[in-house]
Order: sequence, then C-alpha cells, then structure tokens
Amino acid sequence: MYKFPNSIAKLIRELGKLPGIGSKTAQRLAFHILSLENEEANQLAESIVNAKKNTTLCSECCNLTEADPCPICSNNKRDHKLLCVVEQPRDVAALEKMNEYHGLYHVLHGAISPMDDIGPEDIKLRELLIRLQDHSEIKEIILATNPTVNGEATAVYLSRLIKPTGITISRIASGLPMGGDLEYADEITLAKAFEGRKVL
Amino acid sequence: MYKFPNSIAKLIRELGKLPGIGSKTAQRLAFHILSLENEEANQLAESIVNAKKNTTLCSECCNLTEADPCPICSNNKRDHKLLCVVEQPRDVAALEKMNEYHGLYHVLHGAISPMDDIGPEDIKLRELLIRLQDHSEIKEIILATNPTVNGEATAVYLSRLIKPTGITISRIASGLPMGGDLEYADEITLAKAFEGRKVL
Repeated sequence: MYKFPNSIAKLIRELGKLPGIGSKTAQRLAFHILSLENEEANQLAESIVNAKKNTTLCSECCNLTEADPCPICSNNKRDHKLLCVVEQPRDVAALEKMNEYHGLYHVLHGAISPMDDIGPEDIKLRELLIRLQDHSEIKEIILATNPTVNGEATAVYLSRLIKPTGITISRIASGLPMGGDLEYADEITLAKAFEGRKVL
Repeated sequence: MYKFPNSIAKLIRELGKLPGIGSKTAQRLAFHILSLENEEANQLAESIVNAKKNTTLCSECCNLTEADPCPICSNNKRDHKLLCVVEQPRDVAALEKMNEYHGLYHVLHGAISPMDDIGPEDIKLRELLIRLQDHSEIKEIILATNPTVNGEATAVYLSRLIKPTGITISRIASGLPMGGDLEYADEITLAKAFEGRKVL
C-alpha cells in the first residue's frame, strides 16, 4: 500500500480535521499547499498562528477581538441600551453585515444542548448576567440565537432568567426567508410565519 | 461596515486562496481554527511549514518525497522496465491505491496547455527524456495523463517524441467508468468506449 511521505500524511491529517473537509479534499488542499511557493505557504501558516495569538475574547461581550474591550463595546456612537445575544462570533459578523443594528452584542459561544451535555454553565451566560448587573443602562435584550432546538431552548432559558430584572426581552422573528417559496417551506417555518403575522 | 480584526481578516484571506474554498467557507474555517486549542492550531500551522520544508522532488521521477531518490524509485522489488507518466503527484497516490501497478513513475507537474501558455518546457519533460537516455532498461512507457484536452495533447506530444527511441508506448484506456450508466455517459466517452472495445 502506498504511503505518503510522513510530513505530507500529517498535513493531510491535520487539514482533514477542519469542518467540512473530507479526506479527498484534505488531500487536494495538501497537494495545493505543496505546490505553493515557500513564501505563500509560510504566510498561510503564519496567519493561523497570528490569528490565534493576537485574538482574545472581549471582556465585555465575549466576541473575538484584538483589542479589549472590542471596537463595538468601546464605540460610544453605538446604542448601549440595546444588547443582542448570539451564539457565535460569526453571528456578530453576519448581523453587522445587515447594517441595521447599532446596539451591543453578547456572544454565548454555544447554546444549551442537553443531548451534548452542554448546560448553562458551559456557555458565556454567567458573563451575561454579571454584565446586566453592572450595566444598568441596558433596556432591551434581543435574543438572536439560532432558530434551532438548542437555540430556542437557550432563548427560553435566558428569557426566564432575565425576566425578573424587568429588562425588555425580544426574540428575532421566524418565518419564510425573503425570496423563499411557500411551496418549499417546511411546516414548522410556515407555522412560525403564521404565528408571527403582522397587521398591515 | 463591520470589519474583522486584522489577524482574523488575514486568516480568512489566506484560507480563501485555497482551491475550492470560497469566502463563506474560509470564514467558517477561520472561526473553527480560532475555536481550537492553541496546541491544535499550532499543529496545523506546523504541519504546513514542515510539509513544505521536508519534501522535495525526487531527482529521478520528480514525485514529491522526503528521501531522494523516492521510496518508489529506490525500491528494487518494483519493475524498473515499466514507466508510468502522470501529470501530478496526487495521480501517483491514486494509481498506487489500485495496487495493480508495480513499475516506476514520472511526474510531469502539469500538462501542455497552449491556452494557458504552458509549453513542453514548462513541465518535467526534459527530465523524462534525460531519464530515458540514462536508463536503457525501460521497455514500456504508459501515458497516464488525464483524458482531458490538455492531457491528451501531452500524451500525443510525448508519444511522437519517444517513438523514435523504439520504446513501447501505451495510453491508459478511456471508456465508461465501472458502475457507470450508458444512458448518462457523454458522446465522447461512449465513442471512446466503442473505439477501445476488446474481443472477448
């Protein structure tokens, strides 16, 4: 049986650990990297090391950042009365792209998932509660966890926890995506779209 | 507009240069890498640097190797009378997997492609000719370049070049892939399958 040289086999193995990269793709990526100039390959490796080294979690919102507090938390032009709770740093990036929301964020780094043994203490929930105590200016919390079983469970759990503080809690709408098609929508999405209908 | 911290943006940019990795996938991979333990991220980076550093081209067959000559060229149990010409190192890996061929290889690192301005001097063709001169024991050359326009052109060019030396030249068969379906095969593949039919 043909064996790749050790260092190539190791590279294929490491690339194959990335999400969505199977063994065939890992092999293709490895051969591509080997065909690069030394300079280019080193830049890729360096960017991995540097990104890990230079980023930390913002002590306020737990988002990935190079400066602490992060540019969003330290921006006085943003609305510090609004707080949007998301699961992952990539969700902040997605929401910022829409350019409509100008409040702050809180990144949970996960969602409650009893099936995977992830409880409230495994996500950045304590940090959120401490933050609510320290910053009494927060008036509304928008729960923007994913509309999945775990995301919904986390939203329900959070709303029960926060309710006694008197802060307004809202949940982002579920319904048909824009450009979507009634015919192809699943029943739960359709039910949510009806439930969330608005009077015109 | 939201901007990723510099080092994250750079990581996404570098990952996005890999083949088949678009900007969305690059972003997902970057966030995955950032969620890894330092140890794991460093291993990935190191494997890239090490693979580049430790591999070189075999001076005989031009395949990627850590030892020169490579394990295939230096293996006396292999048939040194047979030489299989392929385009890329990954092709050697694919052919070795079938476990049927026990001759040597020659890796061209590309194919002749006038459209992309890649001529005979841009691939490891000179190395092949020198090899044929030096190793008079080679009796058959199997052209296993891809059955694409460029691969076919390279095979034709090579066969004309080698013919005068008197060495037997063969081309791997084209036809329907095993498990394939006549109905879904394209015309050129079908024509090749007919042309290459064998008397039973």
